[in-house]
Amino acid sequence: MAKETLDAGKPTIDIASLANRIEEGERAALARGITLIESRRADHRAFANDLLELLMPNTGKSVRVGISGVPGVGKSTMIDLFGATLTDKGHKVAVLAVDPSSSRTGGSILGDKTRMERLSVDRNAFIRPSPSAGTLGGVAAKTREAMLLCEAAGFDVILVETVGTGQSETAVSDMVDFFLVLMLPGAGDELQGIKKGILELADAIAVNKADGENIDRARAAAAEYRAALHIMTPQDSVWSPPVMTVSGQTGDGLDDIWATINQHRDALQAVGRLDEKRRQQNVRWMWSIFDDQIKALLRDQPNIAARVPELEHDVAEGGVAAARAAATLLALLRDNPDT
Amino acid sequence: MAKETLDAGKPTIDIASLANRIEEGERAALARGITLIESRRADHRAFANDLLELLMPNTGKSVRVGISGVPGVGKSTMIDLFGATLTDKGHKVAVLAVDPSSSRTGGSILGDKTRMERLSVDRNAFIRPSPSAGTLGGVAAKTREAMLLCEAAGFDVILVETVGTGQSETAVSDMVDFFLVLMLPGAGDELQGIKKGILELADAIAVNKADGENIDRARAAAAEYRAALHIMTPQDSVWSPPVMTVSGQTGDGLDDIWATINQHRDALQAVGRLDEKRRQQNVRWMWSIFDDQIKALLRDQPNIAARVPELEHDVAEGGVAAARAAATLLALLRDNPDT
Repeated sequence: MAKETLDAGKPTIDIASLANRIEEGERAALARGITLIESRRADHRAFANDLLELLMPNTGKSVRVGISGVPGVGKSTMIDLFGATLTDKGHKVAVLAVDPSSSRTGGSILGDKTRMERLSVDRNAFIRPSPSAGTLGGVAAKTREAMLLCEAAGFDVILVETVGTGQSETAVSDMVDFFLVLMLPGAGDELQGIKKGILELADAIAVNKADGENIDRARAAAAEYRAALHIMTPQDSVWSPPVMTVSGQTGDGLDDIWATINQHRDALQAVGRLDEKRRQQNVRWMWSIFDDQIKALLRDQPNIAARVPELEHDVAEGGVAAARAAATLLALLRDNPDT
Repeated sequence: MAKETLDAGKPTIDIASLANRIEEGERAALARGITLIESRRADHRAFANDLLELLMPNTGKSVRVGISGVPGVGKSTMIDLFGATLTDKGHKVAVLAVDPSSSRTGGSILGDKTRMERLSVDRNAFIRPSPSAGTLGGVAAKTREAMLLCEAAGFDVILVETVGTGQSETAVSDMVDFFLVLMLPGAGDELQGIKKGILELADAIAVNKADGENIDRARAAAAEYRAALHIMTPQDSVWSPPVMTVSGQTGDGLDDIWATINQHRDALQAVGRLDEKRRQQNVRWMWSIFDDQIKALLRDQPNIAARVPELEHDVAEGGVAAARAAATLLALLRDNPDT
């Protein structure tokens, strides 16, 4: 995908104008805003903060959905067709991604346009690959800000794709309203184990590839997951995660997923839990960025950065008590005139 | 339990002598050391760090076991008898607890001697209630340091009891080698749901109260949990959490639990995972204390502390972007001469 170029020599960026163009739904402006957010330059970060501040009042009005699953489960194909059914219904759909392992130069970028044939040519859809490199926290923070920009640009459904690894899934579930986990069909001995920790996150489970000769296996797998979930999940009066079957190829079940997302939304809103969930997500997000910045301060000071691995090693081996090492880190941070 | 008194007027504490007495297994010295660790006074904290530094070489040699379960599952009774079977085998057993809700003035202190009739009069056992008050991180850090002192005093099995709430369980599982979850008997509709997130932590599940007319129900419950775990847990070549039955009253199954703990230990040690687990726990612990101290710096400066709830509110409501609020917090911390 062509990346917007920020003019490195330009001293200022007209952020008010960029904000206006994003709010008018101009795709190039949206892409440029996200590139600004993803930039590592300090001056760009300041502009990005200004841009977010201008756009904040127009954010928060979308349905935010996370979609996860192991490689090979058919995420991209399912998201492509799911997104297309939503734009058919009149929605504007943005597809974002969190994949800390991604690299723009690599071949397997999540949310890559080439893997979403329908949405990539749909004028009511916007696809943006995962921000590259950096810590998971950094990647997730940028995707989250990109989500806000998409909302300001009028996208009313945001689909955030992620790889099926625990930490990425936790990060994405903490930025969305509804978290969907896709599973492979297969029953009995072939049944794919539900990963540890995923029950904590999933608002629904969908067995994908329920098409052709897979249909029976997918239904049997769904029945087994349903029985296990019944034992494993304590009762929740507001929402119990359903287990569905879906086909990203034929589209069977996609309407059920959208209906489930809306039922979940209604159920949570009826008791005020959706607003509360987003409030808590926002506050956790602030502290997470703050923690990342403190760690960056440690990392960026050569005289401190050299001590960190040494302290970690001594603590790991049990030679130094954790409390003393933590006090040393704090003293280094406070006594350093540059931090 | 009688609490050691630290002489507030005394300018210094002979830490070297205290360390020696702890290493000689003197119970009063151990209790005094833990009281020093639990103190909130800055000078006591410095002494506690010195004490830990002296004792570190003699720590790490125990089997560290976390035991959790909802109220009513019979934790104290089970731990009392389990500990007694271990001292019968020649072990020295320390029982600690993590209960952030506990208060020394309240009546329901975990690890309270009065609730462990056998161990409270066993000279090869040492019981210490949960440190009171403070954040969960603070309570857990103090219990962790108490564990190190018990190890230096020659206790070779440490049982850490905790309440059945997610965050306390995570904190305890991060300080032990083996995490046991006790469940209530009951099958079919009465089956107690396995709490979300607990599969991530449990190294074994034991259905307690498998005695008298409960035996069949306990066995049926264990069979159901076993079947569900089989579906829910991905294969791990080193360890698959077993589901057992146990009676804290009759003692049936307690030997199996001890055998399981040792099998787990052997299996992990064979591939170097036990040492690696402890190394990672130590490093996470250091960063956790560091994060707590940074938060304390914010909280302890009146001009900053006043801004934190305000920033949290604005971010929660979506009026201020998380990144800008985090930058504001960082600027407050760095520009404050007192921090």
